[in-house]
Amino acid sequence: MQRFYLDQAATSWPKRPDVLAAVTEFLHETGAAAGRGSYASARISANWLDRARIAIAKLIHAPSPESIALMGSGTHALNEAIGGSIRPGSHVIASAIEHNSVLRPLERMRMEGLIELDIVPCDQLGWVNPADIGRMKKPNTHLLAMSHASNVTGMIQELQSLGMWCRENGITFLVDAAQTIGYVPIDVQAYGIDYLAAPGHKGLGGILGTGFLYAAPAKQVTHRPLMVGGTGSQSESLVPELAWPQKVEPGNLNMPGIVSMAVATEALLREPFSEREAKMHGDWSRLRDLLSRVPGLQLLAHADSQKYVGVLSCCHSQFTPTDLAAILDAEFQIEVRAGLHCAAHIHHYLETAPMGTLRFSFGHELDPLVVGALEKAVESLSQVDC
Amino acid sequence: MQRFYLDQAATSWPKRPDVLAAVTEFLHETGAAAGRGSYASARISANWLDRARIAIAKLIHAPSPESIALMGSGTHALNEAIGGSIRPGSHVIASAIEHNSVLRPLERMRMEGLIELDIVPCDQLGWVNPADIGRMKKPNTHLLAMSHASNVTGMIQELQSLGMWCRENGITFLVDAAQTIGYVPIDVQAYGIDYLAAPGHKGLGGILGTGFLYAAPAKQVTHRPLMVGGTGSQSESLVPELAWPQKVEPGNLNMPGIVSMAVATEALLREPFSEREAKMHGDWSRLRDLLSRVPGLQLLAHADSQKYVGVLSCCHSQFTPTDLAAILDAEFQIEVRAGLHCAAHIHHYLETAPMGTLRFSFGHELDPLVVGALEKAVESLSQVDC
Repeated sequence: MQRFYLDQAATSWPKRPDVLAAVTEFLHETGAAAGRGSYASARISANWLDRARIAIAKLIHAPSPESIALMGSGTHALNEAIGGSIRPGSHVIASAIEHNSVLRPLERMRMEGLIELDIVPCDQLGWVNPADIGRMKKPNTHLLAMSHASNVTGMIQELQSLGMWCRENGITFLVDAAQTIGYVPIDVQAYGIDYLAAPGHKGLGGILGTGFLYAAPAKQVTHRPLMVGGTGSQSESLVPELAWPQKVEPGNLNMPGIVSMAVATEALLREPFSEREAKMHGDWSRLRDLLSRVPGLQLLAHADSQKYVGVLSCCHSQFTPTDLAAILDAEFQIEVRAGLHCAAHIHHYLETAPMGTLRFSFGHELDPLVVGALEKAVESLSQVDC
Repeated sequence: MQRFYLDQAATSWPKRPDVLAAVTEFLHETGAAAGRGSYASARISANWLDRARIAIAKLIHAPSPESIALMGSGTHALNEAIGGSIRPGSHVIASAIEHNSVLRPLERMRMEGLIELDIVPCDQLGWVNPADIGRMKKPNTHLLAMSHASNVTGMIQELQSLGMWCRENGITFLVDAAQTIGYVPIDVQAYGIDYLAAPGHKGLGGILGTGFLYAAPAKQVTHRPLMVGGTGSQSESLVPELAWPQKVEPGNLNMPGIVSMAVATEALLREPFSEREAKMHGDWSRLRDLLSRVPGLQLLAHADSQKYVGVLSCCHSQFTPTDLAAILDAEFQIEVRAGLHCAAHIHHYLETAPMGTLRFSFGHELDPLVVGALEKAVESLSQVDC
């Protein structure tokens, strides 16, 4: 099936051949659970856990591989961070650009009377001003939840000053790196991040069903796990004293997914971040230029490509985002995403509610074949009388 | 690497070739997230969700495919069932044969003052007498947690009378089918089961990172999800009114895992259960006979193979379980599991604490090559002077 995939912000595709080869080999040759048996194939599985933790820790400059917990999705990691760290009676600040995987757990806690919650606004292109966050602080502010980049507009946010502010005020800093992991450098220690949650199947390059959660050493100790269960250790105890990451990794882990995260992250580490980033920013400008040729198409982005990951949202004066996505799929085999993109607040500020946006997301780089398909689509759409 | 895998109770291996082929094809050709986009490859992914739910619903005689929620592991499914159904102030009964993925969540709730908890004893071979459960009922008894079969001794438990008793007394009946799913017929409606939790990667034949949770229609409505997040629907709402299974499936799902569950379960449905079961019981007797030849080896099982899935535990008068497992691995490439098997209570009744047992688990059938390896090992161990 011919397809031009531009929904990389949902999940990346295709995956690297070496990632798929390692997954296939694991499934055929090893297949064993990790952390349970001590036989040969179980040791191979345990070694994959180590490789994944080591590579991810290196990528985000974590203090140790053991600070990386392996999760089933970015949503799982965010629910773990939010549910495990916030104590009743706290005040929480979240930005308006947050995904529903942050907003919904927080709103549920607010409705249950467990927390106070304030949402920091963003501007018309999805930029959150750190100064606005400072003004929201209360004496009981416990946590700040901030996306590294919006999944709707792709705009990269300022983290470093926020991390410093959180540290000065004893506030836990939770960062959702769903749209930046693998695309943009992240240094959890330099940025003062306490929890970094990310999927493993987007920019990292692993397969679906994966994610991870970094926790700073001080948070690891006080964290209350979302789930508990078998761990392959201290089986005699019903309340085992487990250290991070095992305390948040009960049950059998997704071994093929973990293999994919290990191999994909190791590949990212072998290539210079700066070159990959420069290519992404260049391709973003190229996409922006291409789409700006379509009459009636309003791009929800300014021209500074340095501020964007490979995500670009737009609206058309004549077609709804859903209609336009259907046309692109049916006529040009271009796979893009239309709607609100699981982000409840941002569209109020973008003035894109209730229809949402048409989102193009290309990942690390624009494939030349995709560019060809886009050019054909742009030419065709340009002939529509607006 | 030559290996004789007898840890099928941890995860089954090898998987069916058609399961692995479908996973590989999905990873290479489709790769899309489900329930988000509406383009061609996203529709293929959505179709896999349907196939998995339809097949699993048929296997366990669920009233509808929509009663099957797709999870990341059996532990995830059990935590979801326990955390989402039990209200503070309830009394809960669990059996002594339960896995720590049931016992630990319950014990945590008890320690936090949320529930009262009683553990029903088992006999010396791991049998739980339904009459003992009846005697534990209190006016506020809300839930009974019962494994369909012990993961230590493999003994299949009586569910039908318990389900009837739960129904008569308005008690929620939670069954952990980790060791029986795919091996033994289960009829959630006939047995009166309210929640059935199971991994997808053991007897079902899917890959690691999978599980499912069945909930009876009445429980679906009152269930409070463990995690909330993006669902690809009602994005504008922070407190969406979601029906089961979507209410417990936030975030991107493990698509390759779901593909594997669909194909594996469809394969199970094509073959008669009775033949597969007869083969399993026959092979269990064969394994029992083989192991009973080893002097000093005490088998934790009576002779009625009909009462067992393909799991057999034993202890040796001279070697610890761990030493014996290490010998079998190093000298015979036989991969078995030693220890407490993540089951805190049962060893008190089996009198196998603190060292636990040596567990052989063969899954659906004993491979002839495995029998050959076992015969060599048995011969060698028989020469040890006890």
